[in-house]
Amino acid sequence: MAFDPRYTGRAFTQVGSRPIRADGIDKVTGRARYGADFNMAGQLVGRILRSPHAHAIIRSIDTSRAKSLAGVKAVITAADLPDLTDGDGFLYDVLDNCLARTKVLYDGHAVAAVAALDARTARQALKLIDVEYELLPHVTDVDEAMEDSAPLVSDTMFTEGLEQKPTTPSNIIRRVIHGHGDVTAGFAEADVILERSFRTEQTHQGYIEPHACVANFNPDGTADLWVCTQGHFVYRQHCAKLLGIDASKLRVTPSEIGGGFGGKTHVWTEPVALALSREAGRPVKLVMTREEVFRASGPTSSTSIDVRIGARMDGTITASEATLRYSSGAYAGEWADYGSMTAFACYKLDNVTTVGYDVLVNRPKTAAYRAPSAPMAAFAVESTMDEVAKTIGMDVMAFRIKNAAQEGTRSSYGPVFGPIGLGATLDAAQNHPHMKAPLGANQGRGVACAFWFNGGGQTCVDLNIGMDGTVSLALGTVDVGGSRASLSLVAAEELGIDYAQVHAVVADTSSIGYNDMTDGSRGTFSSSMATISAARNAIETMRERAAKMWDIPIDDVAWEGGHAIAMGKQHGNLGKLSLKEIAAQSGKTGGPIAGHSEIVADGAGVSFATHLCDIEVDPETGRSQILRYTVIQDAGRAVHPTYVEGQYQGGAAQGIGWALNEEYVYGKDGRLQNAGFLDYRIPVCSDLPMIDTQIIEIPNPNHPYGVRGVGENPIVAPLAAIGNAVANATGVRMTHIPMSPPRILAALDGQHGGATVP
Amino acid sequence: MAFDPRYTGRAFTQVGSRPIRADGIDKVTGRARYGADFNMAGQLVGRILRSPHAHAIIRSIDTSRAKSLAGVKAVITAADLPDLTDGDGFLYDVLDNCLARTKVLYDGHAVAAVAALDARTARQALKLIDVEYELLPHVTDVDEAMEDSAPLVSDTMFTEGLEQKPTTPSNIIRRVIHGHGDVTAGFAEADVILERSFRTEQTHQGYIEPHACVANFNPDGTADLWVCTQGHFVYRQHCAKLLGIDASKLRVTPSEIGGGFGGKTHVWTEPVALALSREAGRPVKLVMTREEVFRASGPTSSTSIDVRIGARMDGTITASEATLRYSSGAYAGEWADYGSMTAFACYKLDNVTTVGYDVLVNRPKTAAYRAPSAPMAAFAVESTMDEVAKTIGMDVMAFRIKNAAQEGTRSSYGPVFGPIGLGATLDAAQNHPHMKAPLGANQGRGVACAFWFNGGGQTCVDLNIGMDGTVSLALGTVDVGGSRASLSLVAAEELGIDYAQVHAVVADTSSIGYNDMTDGSRGTFSSSMATISAARNAIETMRERAAKMWDIPIDDVAWEGGHAIAMGKQHGNLGKLSLKEIAAQSGKTGGPIAGHSEIVADGAGVSFATHLCDIEVDPETGRSQILRYTVIQDAGRAVHPTYVEGQYQGGAAQGIGWALNEEYVYGKDGRLQNAGFLDYRIPVCSDLPMIDTQIIEIPNPNHPYGVRGVGENPIVAPLAAIGNAVANATGVRMTHIPMSPPRILAALDGQHGGATVP
Repeated sequence: MAFDPRYTGRAFTQVGSRPIRADGIDKVTGRARYGADFNMAGQLVGRILRSPHAHAIIRSIDTSRAKSLAGVKAVITAADLPDLTDGDGFLYDVLDNCLARTKVLYDGHAVAAVAALDARTARQALKLIDVEYELLPHVTDVDEAMEDSAPLVSDTMFTEGLEQKPTTPSNIIRRVIHGHGDVTAGFAEADVILERSFRTEQTHQGYIEPHACVANFNPDGTADLWVCTQGHFVYRQHCAKLLGIDASKLRVTPSEIGGGFGGKTHVWTEPVALALSREAGRPVKLVMTREEVFRASGPTSSTSIDVRIGARMDGTITASEATLRYSSGAYAGEWADYGSMTAFACYKLDNVTTVGYDVLVNRPKTAAYRAPSAPMAAFAVESTMDEVAKTIGMDVMAFRIKNAAQEGTRSSYGPVFGPIGLGATLDAAQNHPHMKAPLGANQGRGVACAFWFNGGGQTCVDLNIGMDGTVSLALGTVDVGGSRASLSLVAAEELGIDYAQVHAVVADTSSIGYNDMTDGSRGTFSSSMATISAARNAIETMRERAAKMWDIPIDDVAWEGGHAIAMGKQHGNLGKLSLKEIAAQSGKTGGPIAGHSEIVADGAGVSFATHLCDIEVDPETGRSQILRYTVIQDAGRAVHPTYVEGQYQGGAAQGIGWALNEEYVYGKDGRLQNAGFLDYRIPVCSDLPMIDTQIIEIPNPNHPYGVRGVGENPIVAPLAAIGNAVANATGVRMTHIPMSPPRILAALDGQHGGATVP
Repeated sequence: MAFDPRYTGRAFTQVGSRPIRADGIDKVTGRARYGADFNMAGQLVGRILRSPHAHAIIRSIDTSRAKSLAGVKAVITAADLPDLTDGDGFLYDVLDNCLARTKVLYDGHAVAAVAALDARTARQALKLIDVEYELLPHVTDVDEAMEDSAPLVSDTMFTEGLEQKPTTPSNIIRRVIHGHGDVTAGFAEADVILERSFRTEQTHQGYIEPHACVANFNPDGTADLWVCTQGHFVYRQHCAKLLGIDASKLRVTPSEIGGGFGGKTHVWTEPVALALSREAGRPVKLVMTREEVFRASGPTSSTSIDVRIGARMDGTITASEATLRYSSGAYAGEWADYGSMTAFACYKLDNVTTVGYDVLVNRPKTAAYRAPSAPMAAFAVESTMDEVAKTIGMDVMAFRIKNAAQEGTRSSYGPVFGPIGLGATLDAAQNHPHMKAPLGANQGRGVACAFWFNGGGQTCVDLNIGMDGTVSLALGTVDVGGSRASLSLVAAEELGIDYAQVHAVVADTSSIGYNDMTDGSRGTFSSSMATISAARNAIETMRERAAKMWDIPIDDVAWEGGHAIAMGKQHGNLGKLSLKEIAAQSGKTGGPIAGHSEIVADGAGVSFATHLCDIEVDPETGRSQILRYTVIQDAGRAVHPTYVEGQYQGGAAQGIGWALNEEYVYGKDGRLQNAGFLDYRIPVCSDLPMIDTQIIEIPNPNHPYGVRGVGENPIVAPLAAIGNAVANATGVRMTHIPMSPPRILAALDGQHGGATVP
């Protein structure tokens, strides 16, 4: 859709308002139907047997005892989900992760599955499956995995982007380089050069709802899947391919989603549930336990990052470089790429280079986690930025403002930025009351900037106008954060009717065209573009119908404020026809009125933010408490500001958890030691202050309303902002995330994980 | 959509083939999900209290005892479903039928409803509702109801179409007249005039699946309804209006349907289930018992019909007239209109008049039953036709052929026929081996002709092409007889791919535009028009995409046999691109590929049939056995011939049941005496011969493929064909349907219900 300049200065009547969330009452009353809230007659309980070993060859699997247990209706192994991936390496990894073929690659890797009449029988059956393993050495640490002597997770000889063609396999699966200019020359111009190393631990998205699905595979090769997912079309494609059926024959219905944050962008148990159903000839419900979610869904990478920044005493950055190592779990991922691209994206740099490595370890297949890979890179870069500023004696905010990327800046990852909001968020931060609030003893304030690309992609919307003039908006992009409400606002805005007249649903894969996943902050950006296009399409039809009702040429009919208007003096007495009046006659004027849109949404506007954080650190215990937190972010155009603020708050809350407490703890045996919310500590209400938000609106020129994605960015800055705050509160620079009490205490004691602030 | 003459002589590759039914395996394996096969967490069991009286004033309803029963979550009466119909008489009747307001009008009329934790508690609660009735006199017979002295079912003074403005209310709610010419003059020209009177009893559609739904009314005024229906959009409109919510806020998902035949075109319990859910704050499942289906859903009319036909000895009909009285149950219906219009539609008549009366009686609200009202009229007319032929000494077939309507005939109900297939079916019947088969003692052969209008109406189709090149066809018209398979064939035909590459579903009301009900034999006719239009729409997009892939003008790209073809010598080396190849690139060439269509399908082609029936009547018992039965009908174009034959057979089977055994038996107390399949006898396999079929194809010029509706017509002729066969077997003309053994025996004994053949 071409950008329509009429809308840049448009006065919105619906967009920007804060109506009651369409999904709110259902959620607070418990009526919302999540993945586990669907049931089918005759459904079985599916359960998965998982490896207790970090790395082992599967010598044999004997399912005979399990199969003979009364009440067991199916027991399957990899042999029952044969390889149909046809050379598609990505999909082969998905398959192998769903049910291990020859080796188990991590603690929790699926090796077999059962479907039984009840959960107890299913659990008993798992115990009756005899797996003979041959243990292999393992590696779970990203730096260790890069060593020549490290156990090999895969025998594949990866070569992508490597400097030299390797002669032996290694765990390094990819090397990516971004940047421009001459870094060596840049560093030569610097008055000050700082080089720092950082580590971040693996975290989980921590969504409250475990993965859950009901699969029903019919004997005619059609199938149904009810599932909690961020992308039912992607699940359809993957499951159909793995099960060997046409995509159109698999109908995937997305449930309400109890959090995803990137973790529900891959299939995990769904192909297994379908294979169990195929084997058993009955529907199968498969719900992960919390332990399984931790052990065998997709957490984010752990990282090891080196940053080097050179600057002149006047605050000009002359050169920046970073080496970023991202653990990818047991399967190939492209996480280092995002980290490398985002690391320096906030700054206007003449000389910049980033080198990223994706590294295999014996941990679960890594998945996206909200602005994947960016928070770790931002932690490393923004921590170093603070140190550079202090070294040259410049205010950290002034240093950032001086170097901030702006319209026309060539980004560190290539493209030249259009109108962007980083400067506006920095200005807003500078002027925010938060900046002037007094701080007490053991308290410090941190600031950090954040960047995220945002995404677009394939999107379909069907907009149907009923005969009562109310509108059904069928969306194909899963609503993870309020898009049904936001897109209803957009439809109402465009049609010129009230928000309450629009009802949006996420349609199943058989009822609407293909949509990419809800990820990359593409949902509201893409779907609002498609909704506007569909609405304009419907308006064209309504103009035609009005012209027919009036018996005048369509060119004499305008659309304004929800009405067809007869233009021209000769039609002076015709007045106007409301959408409702036109809809009521639709059966007599040509049939139902609809608008449709299938697009590739291009032109996602990048987003920037500045976060402020006040923290108090107890020097006795190392415990820290966030006192105040402010997110200032460019939304382009906030369609439903309450939801936008919710995204800002949610991302910050997750970032705070990551910064302070969350981490996967692996034992020397390669087994995960804290697979549960008691030992993996996500923030609870008492851990968090009310998170303040400020929405900046620098319209995205590629979107008719100026919308930018907002969901990912808020998690990018917190690690760094908190690290900077801790440094200011304690005088110790934390270089290892999470900054948990023991780690802060150790750093205060001059041990590992911290460094004295220069 | 304009009729495309290219398709008249088109050689079809998919249409006309007989692939496996898309819904077949699910149905035979019990996996198909019908109305009662859906469940929601926390769902309650709904039950309805029904009147034991045929006619009574509701003095009071005390629900207090029921409400205080443990486990009861809601008890409602008419007061809880207040009148929001805003002067819409039709909808008021629907409402009053759902829950009686002031009077109960028939045995089985709903007066209150409960929702409880389980069925037992719900049943107990019904017994604890105290209703005080004041009994009124009742009338259940259509002729008695027309008498001046009859008890009045309604106090409304109906005036529509009456000769004289009435001065007092009566049960006659409408009078309709059709015809042309001068009947008096016509009869004056006749050599022979026969006048006969007939009666038919009320029958039920006898669908195997009772009405069933799960209703979930949310506190935010949105609601979901899973329901067995022939028209989920109509259910949506009616329920939304009665519950006072926007249509777009009620999402209705149609289940698989276990038969409807017109009986599932009205809401019966659904608004009650929604109101119970609203009251209880929980989902409510409401499934009718078989007894409730008989007592309180919508059977067809009972009738009383007089026919008068005058003819010359050469076989020319000079005049025809009929008076048709249709019982409408306790609420206004328009059944006499259909009867009056169809009665003489098979014949080319210069002078014809029909007068129809709709009459209220204390019976359930009448609903459509497959070609509603036509079978009774055809029974009366076709019986009389046989008698006239015999009276003038002419072969009954020759007499029909001589008078058969043909292209250009002005029909008895007004329109001039286009190309029609009656003559072709008569010719085929004349030449059918069935006509030459020998008959034994007590055996007779009957013939009858049949007419049905067929329908069109509002229809939407969304056709989405996946990236693997398989096609999802989203339909909005409920599949009652194979339309998913037929429309998949049509989509495959138009796109030039294989049937197996298309998967069709019926989408819910939130996911597709408004569709009229599946009735009037409109389903496949309308939806195939919309499917063709949607497919052509998608083909346009694929031509654009191919042009983009080739970088040539779109006008140089043709579509043939599932491929884009580069036309012109300059593109000679480009070859062709398959749908699959284009689909695979869709994400890079502009996004998902789809075709959409919202139409009012005009130009439904009328359908005609000739039926042949051989019967043997046991003169000792009056029991008759159908020996052979042949349906010869014009389908225009048989999209999936097996389904078409299935419709022919199914309609004939239902007609045979109606003709021979089925009838509502009311006692003098006005109560239904046979509300169950033990006492209401539908035909079982052993009652039926294999029903032969012959498909005639006289293309409907208004449809791109020539399709005519086929579903209703097959039930029109059986009553008459069997009546004529019985007359030929026994020498006695049966004038009262059903021709059950006692009634045949009585007629053979010269008693009521029959007349000696002239």
